[in-house]
Amino acid sequence: MKVLVLSIGTELTRGELVNTNATWLSEQLTELGAEVVEHRTIADDQPRIVEELRELAGRVDVIVSTGGLGPTTDDLTSASVAEALGVELRTHLPSLEAIRRRYEARGRAMTPAGARMAELPEGAIALPNPVGTAPGFEVALGGCVAFFLPGVPREMQAIFRESIASRLAPKLARTTHQIHLRTFGLPESEVGERLRGFEERHAGLTVGYRASTPEVEVKIHVRDVDGASAERRARSIAEEARTALGDFVFGEREDGFAAVVGEALRSRGWSLALAESCTGGLVGQLVTAVAGSSDYLLLGAVTYSNGAKTSMLGVSQELLRAYGAVSAECAVAMAEGARRLADSDLAVSLTGIAGPGGGSETKPVGTVWIALSSASETVVTRQHFGGDRDLVRLQAAYVALDLVRRAALRLEVRETWTTKEIQRLARS
Amino acid sequence: MKVLVLSIGTELTRGELVNTNATWLSEQLTELGAEVVEHRTIADDQPRIVEELRELAGRVDVIVSTGGLGPTTDDLTSASVAEALGVELRTHLPSLEAIRRRYEARGRAMTPAGARMAELPEGAIALPNPVGTAPGFEVALGGCVAFFLPGVPREMQAIFRESIASRLAPKLARTTHQIHLRTFGLPESEVGERLRGFEERHAGLTVGYRASTPEVEVKIHVRDVDGASAERRARSIAEEARTALGDFVFGEREDGFAAVVGEALRSRGWSLALAESCTGGLVGQLVTAVAGSSDYLLLGAVTYSNGAKTSMLGVSQELLRAYGAVSAECAVAMAEGARRLADSDLAVSLTGIAGPGGGSETKPVGTVWIALSSASETVVTRQHFGGDRDLVRLQAAYVALDLVRRAALRLEVRETWTTKEIQRLARS
Repeated sequence: MKVLVLSIGTELTRGELVNTNATWLSEQLTELGAEVVEHRTIADDQPRIVEELRELAGRVDVIVSTGGLGPTTDDLTSASVAEALGVELRTHLPSLEAIRRRYEARGRAMTPAGARMAELPEGAIALPNPVGTAPGFEVALGGCVAFFLPGVPREMQAIFRESIASRLAPKLARTTHQIHLRTFGLPESEVGERLRGFEERHAGLTVGYRASTPEVEVKIHVRDVDGASAERRARSIAEEARTALGDFVFGEREDGFAAVVGEALRSRGWSLALAESCTGGLVGQLVTAVAGSSDYLLLGAVTYSNGAKTSMLGVSQELLRAYGAVSAECAVAMAEGARRLADSDLAVSLTGIAGPGGGSETKPVGTVWIALSSASETVVTRQHFGGDRDLVRLQAAYVALDLVRRAALRLEVRETWTTKEIQRLARS
Repeated sequence: MKVLVLSIGTELTRGELVNTNATWLSEQLTELGAEVVEHRTIADDQPRIVEELRELAGRVDVIVSTGGLGPTTDDLTSASVAEALGVELRTHLPSLEAIRRRYEARGRAMTPAGARMAELPEGAIALPNPVGTAPGFEVALGGCVAFFLPGVPREMQAIFRESIASRLAPKLARTTHQIHLRTFGLPESEVGERLRGFEERHAGLTVGYRASTPEVEVKIHVRDVDGASAERRARSIAEEARTALGDFVFGEREDGFAAVVGEALRSRGWSLALAESCTGGLVGQLVTAVAGSSDYLLLGAVTYSNGAKTSMLGVSQELLRAYGAVSAECAVAMAEGARRLADSDLAVSLTGIAGPGGGSETKPVGTVWIALSSASETVVTRQHFGGDRDLVRLQAAYVALDLVRRAALRLEVRETWTTKEIQRLARS
């Protein structure tokens, strides 16, 4: 079943509003087993809407449209559908009654503008709106079934769930399954390289990639005779992909990186302390965005000034004078100081130059030292990240969290794209 | 000038990713004076892309396309454009050299997949990518000029700004001007209420609102005989709007909230310390996302555990036992402790319940105490925020930063939507 998602609204074509409706509908339709072949977005402009509807009629099996059903003068969808079909608008009495009740429930009388929302193209099937005023409706348009929904996301979603999903599901035999593997530590091209030949070896497999810096997500999409077969094969292919990608895979679709790191700590019963300079609290913010993180995070020290490095973490002024704040020595002293202060199992520290200013020949912008201190040793690594200030900070935070993940899961810390020039200092 | 925005990516048609690129491009193009007539989004499917390009050729003046230019096997845009034009792909040597340098800067050799990104349709004009690897390109497609850009937002934006905006601007007669006022502290409906009647009083004015929680942005869009007249009138209307909205306006479009707070501190030569519990580093991350923030931010203490509140900030165990960590007393002690530790002019603290767990009858989820300590006094306010964990934390961070802004700019701290139940404690 081929579906087209049509969005109607000048606020969309002018770029004033992000079109989350098309995304939500596409996700729902894909999960039901439909193929969303296209999104189109056009302005609130009656001749343009009519032209679009006439052009689309019969090109797909189903059209799901949102927007332009409200009470204001720029809501033109119903009139446009009527024009495209060559029929009149008629007041749909049950909808009119529902609108009147909705106004009354708020202690107001229905306005003429409110009543307009009950005017549907002749022959349309009304789709009741359980959470708002404007009803949706369904019409046959050439060879397609076309659904028209309001643009307010919660109203659109409620009507889709109540009236559309149940109409479409019996007609869709789900034949696909998708698994997402999330990776960190390999560049996108290397991830692709490692999965070369997978699509040729497995019939019905599509492998997709999404770089969401600094993560790379691998999407394993399998089509088979039915949903169960597709799922079984997707599971087996995902296992093969995990072997090829190794411990750079940190989780599947719903697994946020910081949550995975937190689970790793929880599995060992370990606690964590943070010492941040260039990231200024970003690592703490990522860790504590996970509900329940107080189980393992004890404290963080944002030591932005040299004085704070000394007063909060006991980094000696001699060390700062001799090596500077952006140095392996300072990173090690920060991590060990944080571990001492918190009396935690692990502590991770970051000190570097996020830019755009502050770089030098020997320590260019993007240089970050990251150290992880545990009971047995302190590991320190020098990084050089590309990108702007935000990206340098985000990549640094990920490397720091990855060191924590690898320590807690007993994974090797190797020289990789993100982790280079590793030094290990055994604790005396 | 009619423009169509074409987005290419199966992650979009499957609803895995919200299409913010189409929105961003539409906003930029509208501001340049172009008319964005349609967005279309299709999957990474070569026959489909070729068909779409052939259908669109000549239907609009300009096509701006994003996606499908990366190094992986599902990146099919260049090959599709070549097929639609009936030309071959050719390696563009300057782009190949730029890609090689980019790999080398990261200490890696260019891979074959990397080199593929330099293959452009014969006759295409390369558009250099100043912040990433894959170049964009421009071709003539029937009667249209078509631009193809990578899908990574920052790369797409950088290429648009450097190579496209300047190409299009001279062809567009600008007759509009837009000013964005950014506000914090009033709900959207109250912002609208305060600007009621503006559109009726000023010909050619459209006032738009965008709630980007917790900020509300007001867009003053003026159309006049030419761009200069529109700008002059927009400036004057913006002044009037600022009067109506008062000190809830913190800046214009490019003014990030944390940057405005930083400028306020800099203007007074004041330093800042942070003491964060429920926000876990978020305030620090916002403050230090601004380049040069080391001029005023000295340190932050992320005191997630009670032990850390005592060891880092000197909050007494008696106080924690008597009032709990989520209390006015604790917030005051945290702020005063941070100011003492840092020897700073100001310190701000936050302690609360971000949820989803941890709430109680007297301290429900969303309860946050926020205190600001200065040489003369400590102000503390109890908030109750709606929304999920992320939203509670973000709103709390904004109130904390707003207290700093108001202190530095000598603005009144009043009871408002966001700042309630204010207590002032003079320093003894």
